[in-house]
Amino acid sequence: MDYQKIFDDIWEEIRPFSEKGKQADYIPALAKVNPDQFGMCLQTVSGDVYPYRQADTRFSIQSISKVFALAMCLSLRGESLWKRIGKEPSGTAFNSLIQLEVEKGIPRNPFINAGAIVLSDILITELVRPEEEFLHFVRELCGTESIVYNDEVAHSEREHGFLNAAIANMLKSHGTIENDIEHVLMFYFKMCSVEMSCRELASAFMAFADRRPFNIDGYRLTNSQIKRMNAVMQTCGFYDEAGEFSYLVGLPGKSGVGGGIVAICPLKYSVAVWSPRLNSKGNSVMGMKALELLTTYTEESIF
Amino acid sequence: MDYQKIFDDIWEEIRPFSEKGKQADYIPALAKVNPDQFGMCLQTVSGDVYPYRQADTRFSIQSISKVFALAMCLSLRGESLWKRIGKEPSGTAFNSLIQLEVEKGIPRNPFINAGAIVLSDILITELVRPEEEFLHFVRELCGTESIVYNDEVAHSEREHGFLNAAIANMLKSHGTIENDIEHVLMFYFKMCSVEMSCRELASAFMAFADRRPFNIDGYRLTNSQIKRMNAVMQTCGFYDEAGEFSYLVGLPGKSGVGGGIVAICPLKYSVAVWSPRLNSKGNSVMGMKALELLTTYTEESIF
Amino acid sequence: MDYQKIFDDIWEEIRPFSEKGKQADYIPALAKVNPDQFGMCLQTVSGDVYPYRQADTRFSIQSISKVFALAMCLSLRGESLWKRIGKEPSGTAFNSLIQLEVEKGIPRNPFINAGAIVLSDILITELVRPEEEFLHFVRELCGTESIVYNDEVAHSEREHGFLNAAIANMLKSHGTIENDIEHVLMFYFKMCSVEMSCRELASAFMAFADRRPFNIDGYRLTNSQIKRMNAVMQTCGFYDEAGEFSYLVGLPGKSGVGGGIVAICPLKYSVAVWSPRLNSKGNSVMGMKALELLTTYTEESIF
Amino acid sequence: MDYQKIFDDIWEEIRPFSEKGKQADYIPALAKVNPDQFGMCLQTVSGDVYPYRQADTRFSIQSISKVFALAMCLSLRGESLWKRIGKEPSGTAFNSLIQLEVEKGIPRNPFINAGAIVLSDILITELVRPEEEFLHFVRELCGTESIVYNDEVAHSEREHGFLNAAIANMLKSHGTIENDIEHVLMFYFKMCSVEMSCRELASAFMAFADRRPFNIDGYRLTNSQIKRMNAVMQTCGFYDEAGEFSYLVGLPGKSGVGGGIVAICPLKYSVAVWSPRLNSKGNSVMGMKALELLTTYTEESIF
Repeated sequence: MDYQKIFDDIWEEIRPFSEKGKQADYIPALAKVNPDQFGMCLQTVSGDVYPYRQADTRFSIQSISKVFALAMCLSLRGESLWKRIGKEPSGTAFNSLIQLEVEKGIPRNPFINAGAIVLSDILITELVRPEEEFLHFVRELCGTESIVYNDEVAHSEREHGFLNAAIANMLKSHGTIENDIEHVLMFYFKMCSVEMSCRELASAFMAFADRRPFNIDGYRLTNSQIKRMNAVMQTCGFYDEAGEFSYLVGLPGKSGVGGGIVAICPLKYSVAVWSPRLNSKGNSVMGMKALELLTTYTEESIF
Repeated sequence: MDYQKIFDDIWEEIRPFSEKGKQADYIPALAKVNPDQFGMCLQTVSGDVYPYRQADTRFSIQSISKVFALAMCLSLRGESLWKRIGKEPSGTAFNSLIQLEVEKGIPRNPFINAGAIVLSDILITELVRPEEEFLHFVRELCGTESIVYNDEVAHSEREHGFLNAAIANMLKSHGTIENDIEHVLMFYFKMCSVEMSCRELASAFMAFADRRPFNIDGYRLTNSQIKRMNAVMQTCGFYDEAGEFSYLVGLPGKSGVGGGIVAICPLKYSVAVWSPRLNSKGNSVMGMKALELLTTYTEESIF
Repeated sequence: MDYQKIFDDIWEEIRPFSEKGKQADYIPALAKVNPDQFGMCLQTVSGDVYPYRQADTRFSIQSISKVFALAMCLSLRGESLWKRIGKEPSGTAFNSLIQLEVEKGIPRNPFINAGAIVLSDILITELVRPEEEFLHFVRELCGTESIVYNDEVAHSEREHGFLNAAIANMLKSHGTIENDIEHVLMFYFKMCSVEMSCRELASAFMAFADRRPFNIDGYRLTNSQIKRMNAVMQTCGFYDEAGEFSYLVGLPGKSGVGGGIVAICPLKYSVAVWSPRLNSKGNSVMGMKALELLTTYTEESIF
Repeated sequence: MDYQKIFDDIWEEIRPFSEKGKQADYIPALAKVNPDQFGMCLQTVSGDVYPYRQADTRFSIQSISKVFALAMCLSLRGESLWKRIGKEPSGTAFNSLIQLEVEKGIPRNPFINAGAIVLSDILITELVRPEEEFLHFVRELCGTESIVYNDEVAHSEREHGFLNAAIANMLKSHGTIENDIEHVLMFYFKMCSVEMSCRELASAFMAFADRRPFNIDGYRLTNSQIKRMNAVMQTCGFYDEAGEFSYLVGLPGKSGVGGGIVAICPLKYSVAVWSPRLNSKGNSVMGMKALELLTTYTEESIF
């Protein structure tokens, strides 16, 4: 399929939306990103790579990091992981404490903030040097040694992260997290601060698309586990807009408030798109639109 | 693929669960069904049919009927349908009024009771003889003229259906439904009372699996619309257990409290399974288990 | 105390608020009331009566009727009444179904709509001719034979009363009401449709202020029960504004969406005030203001 | 009135309840208190004092301290205080985050934990040495220099106080508190750790009962403000049981999880009672019962 041509068509069609939405500005480091950027990269299972525009510009992956953390935790803990986290869509905003209170400290799924904070706690319990090992895993996953945390972003997030601190304290009050709250929060924000390009993200997510044995840095997942991770991305990957994404795009994926979205089409390709302006649900306006058009033009959704 | 052999293996593996769960007993007509029944039927896109055990016993399809109603409404109204109903998973039990109150009378999706009551209202508005036309559509969809409503079930549901009446009144108070409440409720309960066998359901759902032009009884849906319906089934089809079903089975589908579940594997097959005993979420225990094993053995989920 | 003089002062001070707020308009009969009216009447325990302006104009007492229903039910059932209704303030709007759902069909208190619908159900169960007997009780309470229901208002309320119908159906689904829903709702709306003047309301509420033996029409309440009714008025009498009224006025009382408010100062007086324009919480703007000034000038709150 | 005799009668009647309930045990310092204790003390406005049993044993006043903090804040800020805190009863458990999230970080009233944390924040903003000045105010209020914080209790509460930390972080995320979260929480827990006897509490609360000019340690409140504080105690002083206390006892008051309850009968007396075993709502079982009997025997409620 001529993805390059498709990208050109998509670009023409989404340009009218280029000033729609508002980039994340709750911390200075995110607010100062130039919002007029757009990158996209598709990698096929046969190894072809289709970069488009700013495909090589790195940005803050934010919540996309939760997929990597889930892969590590699922490898380390297996199905027993789900005793501490649910896998149902949340039905409320990603940072809501209401459901967490009603459901006694068990986060609805691993991709809302509460769930990812629990993933952080598990990695701290399981790993000797969690910060280094997480970064190493991500580097191995996309084959790029130069990927790093952005410490300025991480510290700025912690400084302003009162709602996440509220969540962590509530989890602790229910006994859902084991380690020191500050350590858990700091590690959580470090994970979110990782910076990657569309090309690197597409490469990293190939491991969820190609159904080959997953064995990254010693972390192994069966084919069945990979499929299940994709299922969780499908139902929970887009905050309060999972149904909308599933409806319009029809691929499992994960978004972040940095403006990035990654999705996979099993046995066909992985694709990453990035544009900083977000809709009211926290997902990239142009990113959503671009992926909707991609599956429309290619007619290749999972449904 | 030798589905007959796979069904035999599944049956061996799920027999230990045959007395787990509790059949619906909120109305006498459902309570008196013999719970020790199990039927299954798979139909491939090439037309092969694999019935198993009580594949030809009819049962109350209940909420599975909502898929048929959605197909008709989507054909009649197109995308404007979504002004009155959302398409996000609900995150609360299927009959909760809380979300409906918080979200000002817009049901989260068409498969929770509130959403399907709105579908009923739309069909009453659009159709001259909605009861007859709905039944005709279902008959055409599976090619069986003998399918009928069970009036005893419908009237018994209405007599005990206080929670649904509460939902309908709340919808009316928000202006989400247009017609007389009693008419809407009675039509809703009639739709749910339709009785079909696994063989008939598998046949009916083939229209969502084969990606051929959908034109049933004059109701047309594009390929893209069919895919989108499948996406809604995937994220919203299993009450408060959509994530679990997606995780374990990995197919779009819809369940009903009569104990039936239908699912589709795009471009491969449609499958229906039935066993009356339900888990705490209202889904058939053996049905869930059987479909989980089916996609495990065939390795054919959408992920 | 020179209440006449105090009323003059109050009137001067509240006139600037005479166009603030918005009268109830959810049914035509309430919408057509001239909003530029104001009446007030205070009756002392020694029998002096101080009418002011439109003190003799009758208006729809609406939720004030719930106090009368509670008096009858408490006399009929005693403390066992509280098995079916709570006596805690609600913390949410008076017609919310959320708390009712969370608390399994037990209304928080007898003055939210759900609670008063349960009172209606009890009176239907207990009385041979509930409509006649309720009216007779009210007439005896204030010594005026000419008090009647406004059937136009009652039927209009039923016609538009979808939210109350939702509440009644939810109560029925939890088994909290015993009688036919339509009968319960119609009786509830009839009670609310009673029309009384400020003078009549002040007279009726004297029975809750004078601590003399309560024996109206055969309904007896002990002094302790009267005090307890006053306590419920204090904590629950003003929808979502009970705290505000307690803070500003400091008297037990009850308001209605017809614009009436009645309050009592134990062992001193009862007072009724009426003006149709309501604040956002459903309480009369001038009525609230007038009572706040009354207790400020007289320095006679219960605190 | 012969309060001594009344206390004897009360004691006889409540002894059967002496092992009902469960003392607070969420921190070791509270768990180790001997639960088989009971103290009571009533002080009349004319200055007579009626101590009973362990009336001079000090205990952790916990949430009763919130009344002192409110008095100080109301004196410092006047009515503008209510921009940051509501004065409506909460309708949910005292430590719930749900209402706080729904209502955008404005606590429902000053006596739920969220509200008192805001009071703490205000005192830190307003005072040079808040810890010393708060203690000085309490000492002046009851005329006892020896009253002190229990630092072991305060630190132990902080160590286990994850839910309060969650609340403080959520308040901070909404901008409702200004100061450093750790400072606010530590001050909050110090206030709660103050230890006083029933005699001292009755003496301290006389200032809310006698309607004399309130001028303690330079903090002035008008008669109207005192009445309003009593109104807030009436509607919000007993967590999720304010209606029940109002119904059974009929006096404004405040309870704490240390097992203490203080109440006032305006122009008549203040009364404190203490017994460590709590009911499911967090209020002292014997304390509630004793005060119910006190107003029954004396027939002196505010209603």
